[in-house]
Amino acid sequence: MSVISVKNIYYLGPDGSNTYNAMLNVLNTGNIEIQNKIPQKSIKSALKSIESDYSSVCVLPIENSIEGIVRETIDNLLLLEDNNIKIIGEITLPIEHLLLSSSLNKSEIKEIISHPQALSQCSKYLYKEFPDVILKEVSSTSYAAEKVSIKQDKSIAAIANEGCAKIFNLNILDKNLNDEKDNKTRFYILSREKIERKNAGKTAIILSINNHSGALYEVLKIFYKYNVNLTYIDSRPSKKKLGEYLFFIEIDGFEDEEKIKNAIIELTSIVDFFRILGSFHKLN
Amino acid sequence: MSVISVKNIYYLGPDGSNTYNAMLNVLNTGNIEIQNKIPQKSIKSALKSIESDYSSVCVLPIENSIEGIVRETIDNLLLLEDNNIKIIGEITLPIEHLLLSSSLNKSEIKEIISHPQALSQCSKYLYKEFPDVILKEVSSTSYAAEKVSIKQDKSIAAIANEGCAKIFNLNILDKNLNDEKDNKTRFYILSREKIERKNAGKTAIILSINNHSGALYEVLKIFYKYNVNLTYIDSRPSKKKLGEYLFFIEIDGFEDEEKIKNAIIELTSIVDFFRILGSFHKLN
Repeated sequence: MSVISVKNIYYLGPDGSNTYNAMLNVLNTGNIEIQNKIPQKSIKSALKSIESDYSSVCVLPIENSIEGIVRETIDNLLLLEDNNIKIIGEITLPIEHLLLSSSLNKSEIKEIISHPQALSQCSKYLYKEFPDVILKEVSSTSYAAEKVSIKQDKSIAAIANEGCAKIFNLNILDKNLNDEKDNKTRFYILSREKIERKNAGKTAIILSINNHSGALYEVLKIFYKYNVNLTYIDSRPSKKKLGEYLFFIEIDGFEDEEKIKNAIIELTSIVDFFRILGSFHKLN
Repeated sequence: MSVISVKNIYYLGPDGSNTYNAMLNVLNTGNIEIQNKIPQKSIKSALKSIESDYSSVCVLPIENSIEGIVRETIDNLLLLEDNNIKIIGEITLPIEHLLLSSSLNKSEIKEIISHPQALSQCSKYLYKEFPDVILKEVSSTSYAAEKVSIKQDKSIAAIANEGCAKIFNLNILDKNLNDEKDNKTRFYILSREKIERKNAGKTAIILSINNHSGALYEVLKIFYKYNVNLTYIDSRPSKKKLGEYLFFIEIDGFEDEEKIKNAIIELTSIVDFFRILGSFHKLN
């Protein structure tokens, strides 16, 4: 198997974040060799880093099974100026929420902090086990764990993942806090380099169409005509006018397959904007 | 004109919020008469309130021109148990960001607080005018204004709307902070009562389809066949499995129009789930 060898891997940090775990999983697959792991404060800065660093790879969240598409990733992918940076792989991880604290005793907990999405995804657990504690929102689950670790206050707990327990030296008071058990996040791996291609793969596309009646139907008709399976579709505002949209689409197959090439030729004749974000396969 | 007369109007508060402004605008249209304005802490609690209060109306944000659909509204509309509660109108308002403080002097400002979306929508302005200030995220723009008002600290400013300047007695240091000038939010008005119908209107639908190839195409084909114009489409995760989706769709026309009735009959034979959220027209 051919292996990509680059200097740096960028990811949405801080260490302990779900994207950090995804990054470790990507490295474990053996597809990519790197020298430095560099956490980034935002999705935007991770993409800016890969744009200015020619020997790099980047890992970003794209979709969560509860929350849906990660809008910040789509919106910033659209702003990429270097069209040679492509999605080269995807990886899906289960998201687990644990209760972490310096304390060893649940009855001591008076305040629980986490990202608003994590708090909302554990609302049934919290209502049942901690009806009277104060809930506080912070910017990420790993930041919550770090805060609890720094304060060394036994009345505070964080909701975060297992990796955070190790990194921030906290006790695990409870596991499996999620209300919905099938909580997963999918991540994109981006680079200028290419991963050796496997049989089954997907292609991600962003396009916009004139907002006349049936425009989206015309687009889907072309995919249907060439027997191309649509696995995902979502709309994003053009940010110019309320009611003007871009479509983010994922299809089964690689862009150089005959039927997909033909569909793309026909599509480009009816769309206003068309960009292939990459053809890729699952790394795990 | 017939006027709806109910006891209570619920809205996503606190007072000064953009939904609060939308609520005032709804009342100004003269379509609805109420006795009490009752702010709600969340979209979920606003919908719970209207479910348990038979003489009520509710105002919620549904779409912003920069951020896209308000997921919390769609997800909670799906959980409505009383199918008699319908969308009865929509209203669209420009969203304006202003810099508010107890101070009268921009050079005194060391910290600016607001909702993360507002901070991100003013990033160019902030970078140019305040490259060195600390930016702090809070849960809403009106909460930011309230906090600045309570602290009476002249080194802190909030990004919020003009109504907040009045409500919280703050000075306007700058107007038009938005990077994108066409920033608008659309709101739904919901009730068990009906507003007298005008000519042009829309219908909002949520449906799910078996995830086989071309399923969405089959849905759009039916709308196309009956010459029904799709004005909006967005997918939401089913929350059960990564890759399973519901579609939120808006079409031109009322549900009792002949062509729409026919399209719906044909649609219900191929979908797994189908719910009409309401037929409504613009109130402003």
